[in-house]
Amino acid sequence: MNTSNQLRIVGISGSLRKGSYNTALLHAAAELMPPEMTLEIIDISPLPMLNQDFEKPFPEVAAEFCDRLAKADGVLFATPEYNSSISAVLKNAIDWASRSPQQPLNGKPAAIIGASIGIFGTARAQTHLRQVLSFVGALTLNKPEVLVGQAHRVFDSEGKLTDEMGRGFLHDLLVAFAQWIRQVSPT
Amino acid sequence: MNTSNQLRIVGISGSLRKGSYNTALLHAAAELMPPEMTLEIIDISPLPMLNQDFEKPFPEVAAEFCDRLAKADGVLFATPEYNSSISAVLKNAIDWASRSPQQPLNGKPAAIIGASIGIFGTARAQTHLRQVLSFVGALTLNKPEVLVGQAHRVFDSEGKLTDEMGRGFLHDLLVAFAQWIRQVSPT
Amino acid sequence: MNTSNQLRIVGISGSLRKGSYNTALLHAAAELMPPEMTLEIIDISPLPMLNQDFEKPFPEVAAEFCDRLAKADGVLFATPEYNSSISAVLKNAIDWASRSPQQPLNGKPAAIIGASIGIFGTARAQTHLRQVLSFVGALTLNKPEVLVGQAHRVFDSEGKLTDEMGRGFLHDLLVAFAQWIRQVSPT
Amino acid sequence: MNTSNQLRIVGISGSLRKGSYNTALLHAAAELMPPEMTLEIIDISPLPMLNQDFEKPFPEVAAEFCDRLAKADGVLFATPEYNSSISAVLKNAIDWASRSPQQPLNGKPAAIIGASIGIFGTARAQTHLRQVLSFVGALTLNKPEVLVGQAHRVFDSEGKLTDEMGRGFLHDLLVAFAQWIRQVSPT
Repeated sequence: MNTSNQLRIVGISGSLRKGSYNTALLHAAAELMPPEMTLEIIDISPLPMLNQDFEKPFPEVAAEFCDRLAKADGVLFATPEYNSSISAVLKNAIDWASRSPQQPLNGKPAAIIGASIGIFGTARAQTHLRQVLSFVGALTLNKPEVLVGQAHRVFDSEGKLTDEMGRGFLHDLLVAFAQWIRQVSPT
Repeated sequence: MNTSNQLRIVGISGSLRKGSYNTALLHAAAELMPPEMTLEIIDISPLPMLNQDFEKPFPEVAAEFCDRLAKADGVLFATPEYNSSISAVLKNAIDWASRSPQQPLNGKPAAIIGASIGIFGTARAQTHLRQVLSFVGALTLNKPEVLVGQAHRVFDSEGKLTDEMGRGFLHDLLVAFAQWIRQVSPT
Repeated sequence: MNTSNQLRIVGISGSLRKGSYNTALLHAAAELMPPEMTLEIIDISPLPMLNQDFEKPFPEVAAEFCDRLAKADGVLFATPEYNSSISAVLKNAIDWASRSPQQPLNGKPAAIIGASIGIFGTARAQTHLRQVLSFVGALTLNKPEVLVGQAHRVFDSEGKLTDEMGRGFLHDLLVAFAQWIRQVSPT
Repeated sequence: MNTSNQLRIVGISGSLRKGSYNTALLHAAAELMPPEMTLEIIDISPLPMLNQDFEKPFPEVAAEFCDRLAKADGVLFATPEYNSSISAVLKNAIDWASRSPQQPLNGKPAAIIGASIGIFGTARAQTHLRQVLSFVGALTLNKPEVLVGQAHRVFDSEGKLTDEMGRGFLHDLLVAFAQWIRQVSPT
C-alpha cells in the first residue's frame, strides 16, 4: 500500500491523560524516527465503549479510525500498564478495529513501546498486547523491546524524553521497525 | 464482613449487549446457586472510560460501584473473550476499582466464568482476567473452571442455559466458590 | 538461506511418548503439506536438561540440534498442553537454541499447532509458546490457528488424523505457512 | 496438616547451576523468615524429564518429591526467567507433581519469588508460573511481589543478598506468606 518510499506510521497511546508518558513517548518517537518515516498520532478517546448492540451501522468515528489504520504502513502502540495488562481504552480501540469488515490490523506491521512509573516498564502489558495483536493478525516487531521504567525520571517536566539510553533504544526500535515493514510488505 | 450465614455475591458481566451470553450465564448462576448465596448483578455500563485526569474527585458512579464491590462477600465475573483477552468494558471496571482508595477487590474472593460462541469458551480471556485479578489482590477460585463454548447451542432463545452438563459445571463452581469464600474469610 | 524453491521444514513435537498425538499431528502435516514443502521431524529427547554450568563447551547434541534449526526454512512446533503451558521438554529445546551463539530461531519463520485430549486444544499452551518464540526472535505465523481438541476422537488407533475438518485446517495452516516463509525471507 | 505452630516450607529453585541467584534467593529467604517458619530446599535436578510412557510405575524420585511437597505447609518457588517464561526444569517438576495421584500441589499454599540479571526481575516468568500453579490448584500468595532485577548487583560474590531494600521486600513477602498459610489452612 506504500507507493512512495515514505513510511506513514500512525501512533496510538493507551493513556488518555494529558501528561501521559506514553503519549510523550510517541512524541519522542516522532523526533527519533529515521527520515523515511512520518508519525501521525491518533486520538482514540472519541471511540465509544464497544457494545455489539450498537455496531450496526458502524459508528462513523470508528470507521474513520479504521480507515486511518488501514492507510498506514505501520502502527506504533505506546501502552501503559494498568493492573498487569493494557488499558481499557487501548483494548477498546483494537476491538473496534477487529469489528470492522475492513480488518485494518490484519497483516499490518506493528510495533510496541511502553512507559510506566514502576521499574518494570510495562513488561506484562506488552505481553498481553502482543497476544491480542497476534490474534487480530498484526505483524508485530519482535525486537528490540522498549520498556521505559521510572518514567518520571527519564522524561522532563515538559514531557521530553531526556534519557540518552532510552532515546537510543527507541531509535533502534524505530530503525528495526522500518526494516520490518519493508521486509513484510508486498513488493 | 459477612455477619450472617448468607453470602452476598455481586456478578459482573463483561459484555454490554442485551442478549449477552455472559449476562445470561450470570442469570443461570443466580438460579443454580446454593441457597446460602444471593446474586446481585452490577451494570458496569455507566462507568466512564478511565482517564486519570478525571479521577479526582472520584466519580460518584465509580465510587458507588466500588462500594458495592466492597460490601459483597464475593465477586463473580462472567467474561467474554474479545481478541484473545477480556473486553475493554470489564478491564475498565476493574481499573476503576483499583484506583479507589478503598481497594475493594483487594482480598476479595472472586470466581471467573465465561461464555463464547467459539469452542474454546474464553480460555484465553480467563487467563488474562485471572492475572489482572491477582494483581489487584483478589482471591480467585482456582477450580473448577467454567468455560462455556458454542454458547448459541447451550442457551435457548430466551437466554436460559439449557445444557445439563453446563448447568452441572456451573453449579459445582458455585458450591466450590461458597466453600472458598468461607475458607478465606476472617472468622 | 533457501536456494531452491523447496521449503525445508523441521518439525518439533513437545511430547516424548510414542503414541503422542502431537507427533501424530506432525506426521499428518507431512502428508498434508503443499508439494513445495518437506518435513523432517527432530527428536528432542536426547537434549539434556539445560544447566548453565554445563553449556561450555556447548554439548554436541545441542549444537547439532541448533544446526538443524539454522538450516531449515521454517520450524513447525506441535505442542501439547501440560498444566496450562507448554511441556518442559519443549521449553528445554527452545532454551538450548537460545543459548547458542548461532541464535538459530532468531528471524526464523515458525508455526504452531497442537493437540490435546481436552476440548480446548492447547489454547493456553500455544499462547505461552508464541510469547516465548517472540522473545527468541522467531517470526511466528499468526493465522490460521490449529488447535486439535478431543484428540482421541480425531486420530485413529494408528495415529492417523482422520477428521476431515481437522485435516482441512491443518492444510490451510501449512499453505499459509509456506506463503509466510516466502513473505519474510530475504529474496 | 500442620499440627504444631511451626510452618514447614519447602523451597524450589528453578535454576540448577551452582551459583544460581534463585537458589541464593532461597537461602536469603531462609535467613529472613519469621521464626515460625522453617525452609527446606528441594533439589529438583534428579527428576527425569517427564515422558508419559515412563510414569507407570511412578518413578521413586518423583514419588519422593511429591511426598515432600505434600507434607509441607507451603511451597516457595524461586524462578529464573528464560526466554520470557519459566525454566524447563521448574516446569518439569510441577508437571511431575501434577501426574501424581496424590496431587500434592492441589490446595497447597504457594509463593513466588524470582531473580534475574536483567532489570525486569522475572516479571513475565512469574506470570506464567502463577498461571500454571493456579491450574494445578495451588493457592498462590498475590502480594507483595518480589522481583529481584540486576541480581549481580544485589548479591555479593558469596551469594548473599546484600541489598537492604531487597531484603526488606523478601521479609515482607515471607511474613505475608505465613499469614496466608494460616488464612487458607483448615483449622
